[in-house]
Amino acid sequence: MKLSLQRRIAAEFIGTLFLLAAVVGSGIMGERLAAGNVALALLANTIATGAALIALILAFGAISGAHLNPAVTLADALRGGFAWREVPAYILVQVAGAVGGVIVAHLMFGLPLLAVSTHNRSGPSQLFSEFVATFGLLAVIWGCARRRPSAVPYAVGSYITAAYWFTASTSFANPAVTLARCMTNTFSGIRPADVAGFIGVQIGGAIAATLLFQWLAPIAKADSTAQTAEHDR
Amino acid sequence: MKLSLQRRIAAEFIGTLFLLAAVVGSGIMGERLAAGNVALALLANTIATGAALIALILAFGAISGAHLNPAVTLADALRGGFAWREVPAYILVQVAGAVGGVIVAHLMFGLPLLAVSTHNRSGPSQLFSEFVATFGLLAVIWGCARRRPSAVPYAVGSYITAAYWFTASTSFANPAVTLARCMTNTFSGIRPADVAGFIGVQIGGAIAATLLFQWLAPIAKADSTAQTAEHDR
Amino acid sequence: MKLSLQRRIAAEFIGTLFLLAAVVGSGIMGERLAAGNVALALLANTIATGAALIALILAFGAISGAHLNPAVTLADALRGGFAWREVPAYILVQVAGAVGGVIVAHLMFGLPLLAVSTHNRSGPSQLFSEFVATFGLLAVIWGCARRRPSAVPYAVGSYITAAYWFTASTSFANPAVTLARCMTNTFSGIRPADVAGFIGVQIGGAIAATLLFQWLAPIAKADSTAQTAEHDR
Amino acid sequence: MKLSLQRRIAAEFIGTLFLLAAVVGSGIMGERLAAGNVALALLANTIATGAALIALILAFGAISGAHLNPAVTLADALRGGFAWREVPAYILVQVAGAVGGVIVAHLMFGLPLLAVSTHNRSGPSQLFSEFVATFGLLAVIWGCARRRPSAVPYAVGSYITAAYWFTASTSFANPAVTLARCMTNTFSGIRPADVAGFIGVQIGGAIAATLLFQWLAPIAKADSTAQTAEHDR
Repeated sequence: MKLSLQRRIAAEFIGTLFLLAAVVGSGIMGERLAAGNVALALLANTIATGAALIALILAFGAISGAHLNPAVTLADALRGGFAWREVPAYILVQVAGAVGGVIVAHLMFGLPLLAVSTHNRSGPSQLFSEFVATFGLLAVIWGCARRRPSAVPYAVGSYITAAYWFTASTSFANPAVTLARCMTNTFSGIRPADVAGFIGVQIGGAIAATLLFQWLAPIAKADSTAQTAEHDR
Repeated sequence: MKLSLQRRIAAEFIGTLFLLAAVVGSGIMGERLAAGNVALALLANTIATGAALIALILAFGAISGAHLNPAVTLADALRGGFAWREVPAYILVQVAGAVGGVIVAHLMFGLPLLAVSTHNRSGPSQLFSEFVATFGLLAVIWGCARRRPSAVPYAVGSYITAAYWFTASTSFANPAVTLARCMTNTFSGIRPADVAGFIGVQIGGAIAATLLFQWLAPIAKADSTAQTAEHDR
Repeated sequence: MKLSLQRRIAAEFIGTLFLLAAVVGSGIMGERLAAGNVALALLANTIATGAALIALILAFGAISGAHLNPAVTLADALRGGFAWREVPAYILVQVAGAVGGVIVAHLMFGLPLLAVSTHNRSGPSQLFSEFVATFGLLAVIWGCARRRPSAVPYAVGSYITAAYWFTASTSFANPAVTLARCMTNTFSGIRPADVAGFIGVQIGGAIAATLLFQWLAPIAKADSTAQTAEHDR
Repeated sequence: MKLSLQRRIAAEFIGTLFLLAAVVGSGIMGERLAAGNVALALLANTIATGAALIALILAFGAISGAHLNPAVTLADALRGGFAWREVPAYILVQVAGAVGGVIVAHLMFGLPLLAVSTHNRSGPSQLFSEFVATFGLLAVIWGCARRRPSAVPYAVGSYITAAYWFTASTSFANPAVTLARCMTNTFSGIRPADVAGFIGVQIGGAIAATLLFQWLAPIAKADSTAQTAEHDR
């Protein structure tokens, strides 16, 4: 039985808030403790983010689908598993939750509520990385959705753990995350000037993977609502 | 079939003992071997704690529910899934087990049985961190309890793995753990003066998350006993 | 219901491409950030590869079987679970996907499309390591195939995570991967001169494990198609 | 359907061989690459061992029960789940497999087949650590055996991952492993003089946990054969 939209967007808000708190907070902690060793800081950031995704998708998957990501919401709508009329509400609370998560992380580490990032992430390598990262994320989601939706939390957490290291951009792969991360001038930040490009290629990657999987792994109509996490059926 | 209270509190005692042995012992080992690199010491501490939680909740979940945490016991009682009359016994053995775990860790590493910590963990950032940490822990537990209780061990282990890094306090998120950790003057210790504040906000965070999820993800009466681990049904 | 060969080889292509992007990309990132500490670089490479395997086998297992490895395809055919007439197509797209993955990794990190590796991996220790690595990989696959095919993604990801460290060669264990890795002059590369030896012992190890398990854990005829991931039944 | 004893002891031999190859091999690799940082070497050793256990128990659990450990075999016999007359054969191949694994690791890393360890692991802290480590291992196994045997591979892998760090002895917790590790003069070695003490307290810990769980979590007669991995039922 599907829960009310109100409940579902509350879940998206809290889930995305915790996701950003995890990404930004662990970046701050990692950088503070790593004594200048960037590999160690990113390793901490990676393990925290991957583990947070597993926990959050397990917890919120059965409530809201645990998209926590406008690219996932759009892809799900594109494939017919999510009502277009609910897309704006989902994206709005994802962005609001993401910004809220940055604020929570800053408060936990005694920093100003928000700050403009100066972290340069520009150039074709970065943009191509984000295209690949988001293409792969949606490929993993659609690949699991057809036959083993209950594995999605582990698949997504594992995928992002890997993608933090195998893409040059450390795999944002999420427009709400990208937008919020320009508001923190810490390890995980991104300059506001680089945000639009990131979001553009992320959406491109998500659409490309979704179209490919529409052919590659057709989902029966009744099953077509699979997204980040197993659905409520 | 529910096991006798005697058996269940024995399980809570042993489980919490091993949890603290893992937290404190791996902190000692990590600090000894890390040659001053705090990120590496915390990484070892994190991996050991998260893995221990998975193993312990898998092992004790079907016996006692594997609360291992007074905040979880209180929250479960608050939600109607656990009898209030059994709460004192659970909390008592959780605290006793936690202190026992510190002693066991000290014995394994050749230290005096107990020692007063001098590790300062005060200030609003620390307190806010513990509120967030415990709110998130209960959110994850309640989120999973409704639809996939068998995933709770992985969700909780993953959540704490992340929270060690994304909160400024390294996420105690457990009053029994907090109390016991003031009795070790090693990596994972906390000054006795800071304990009461931590416990207060932990209980606050647990209650807040529980009230929120009472609305967010209603559990049918018959299912309302879900907690740290899947229940015995 | 089995999907068309066209769809299945597309899945093998994309899966192997992402596998190589993960192996090569994370090697580049690890080496760049680790400031000369090879253990840290290999740890990043390991975590990324193991996590990528879990995600990719979960995603592509139900489409193509997620072999992503000619040694697995050959072993599956040898055991009767895969049609010999489809073997060439599978191997071809695995190799093509692997090379594609190297190119994608190089593009993401701003390197020339392909480069000849100068990484010496020769000598009997290296060859014996690859025999052991691939024997173990197939042992793990066949061991899981009989009774719990749905655990294969986790078993394979875990096995390779371990084997990166317990073999002297860092466990290529995959002819397509080996061939493609001679085209990157980065952390994970291998000299072209060392490729043939690696592939030879990999196939030897795969055949040896397959013959052993044919006796050790007989699979009923109807179940004989198990391979890297649970099959479509 | 239970497989023949011949098949089951072959599985125990190969499984224990790979377990030791993983423990010893990753210790060698970790020490070689870690440039003197013992925390990093142990972290590599830990991740490889925990991951190997997950893969091996998943693969061999349904064949032989994947004891891979004389303490588990004894405990299972003590509890009535394993025939006493098969105990000697199991223990014999576990020890032989363990020694074989050390040889395989040495061959992979270009070392002499066997060597006497000079690694001092003596004193009451070490012995108490091994008692705790093995008590905990059997507690985890018996805790899972009753209700979720299919989680044993993950529980045991996670437990040992934690115990490598929270015990002062790095948690051998296995008499066959202990015996074999006195034959390698590398990171994971142990002096022959320290072996008997380790094995004695390991067996003591295993028996203590087994007796406790006989009361704590009674298993119905028909279910009493649970051990390291889910059984063949």
